[in-house]
Amino acid sequence: MKLIGYFRSSAAFRVRIALNYKDIKVEHASRHLRKGEQRAPDYVALNPQKLVPALVLDSGEVLTQSLAILEYLEEIHPEPPLLPKDPVGRARVRALALIVSADVHPIQNLRVMAYLRDKFGQTEESAFAWSRHWIETGFEAYEATIAKDQRTGAFSHGDTPTFADLCLAPQVFNAQRFKVDMARYPTIQRIHAACMQHPAFDAAQPSRQPDAEL
Amino acid sequence: MKLIGYFRSSAAFRVRIALNYKDIKVEHASRHLRKGEQRAPDYVALNPQKLVPALVLDSGEVLTQSLAILEYLEEIHPEPPLLPKDPVGRARVRALALIVSADVHPIQNLRVMAYLRDKFGQTEESAFAWSRHWIETGFEAYEATIAKDQRTGAFSHGDTPTFADLCLAPQVFNAQRFKVDMARYPTIQRIHAACMQHPAFDAAQPSRQPDAEL
Repeated sequence: MKLIGYFRSSAAFRVRIALNYKDIKVEHASRHLRKGEQRAPDYVALNPQKLVPALVLDSGEVLTQSLAILEYLEEIHPEPPLLPKDPVGRARVRALALIVSADVHPIQNLRVMAYLRDKFGQTEESAFAWSRHWIETGFEAYEATIAKDQRTGAFSHGDTPTFADLCLAPQVFNAQRFKVDMARYPTIQRIHAACMQHPAFDAAQPSRQPDAEL
Repeated sequence: MKLIGYFRSSAAFRVRIALNYKDIKVEHASRHLRKGEQRAPDYVALNPQKLVPALVLDSGEVLTQSLAILEYLEEIHPEPPLLPKDPVGRARVRALALIVSADVHPIQNLRVMAYLRDKFGQTEESAFAWSRHWIETGFEAYEATIAKDQRTGAFSHGDTPTFADLCLAPQVFNAQRFKVDMARYPTIQRIHAACMQHPAFDAAQPSRQPDAEL
């Protein structure tokens, strides 16, 4: 299998963590998003959405959308699990993952920021304020959801990582870049620290990727 | 179980279709999003994200995020299925569902449109152009993904509905409200027509809900 990503992409970061956690070896390739390499015809043929990541299977089939890829990896490689066994717990984990991956990240990604600047004439500063606003809105809900729930453990759901943490940790990196005050989200901060202690998360972080620009 | 929704919410619409398709009877309740009823303290206690839908189980547990609810319904009520059996097919369906539910809908929902008007001083017209842009971007990718794929059938994946169609059909309603030229997406149009012929989709549409404003 080959994962096509980008060091700073939150969505690719999620998949890198899952691959590491499940010890699945893949070839890594990169498309430089700021240079627009995801819009090159050979990539659009693989993923008409022009977004990373894409996972190219040995059969040649191409999987896209990070959460769909995570579900696939969980189905073909169930151990160690990244979802709990009970349906209600699974729903809780997936909902937490979606708070970040549907309701935060797509609103503040590169292409949306570009629209704000190019079409609405917004400054870099107000595009940053926009990103902060949606990250804060999402983190406030995430924090409220996990802070007093008995099912929250060392990680967002229990004491081992789940899809929720795979979405949360990359978003915290993003939040830090946008200068979000993380002290407002003590449970998220605690879980993020636990994540980054874990070798699967650590090795997946942007600065450790071969295409990283430091 | 009780589903808390809103007639015009695409996310609630997805869940209504699944409940109808699987013949699961639930009580229905509504929060009027334009009046801000989703921000009332009693609802925020159920769902700190202040979004619909929320599915309240008989145990009192609350499930949020439409795709997490769909996965839950599929797990506890597998027949008739809304996901194919093979992992690659499941990944394809989930990716299609996410093109709409992660990369289109959250960028053009009510709260985002409100930010454009209130914080960026955009006109109603330019907020509409924004919505159209993200719907068109998503539909272009969706159409390119399904148009020439042998796995596309009467519906987005095969000849029976899947999660992909449950996300697509409500988004087409949305697209029509924003005056998107649907002739550009012939395969989507064909599938949408097939969806709306199906009683599970028809009964779930906004105009047939008790809280509908015509």
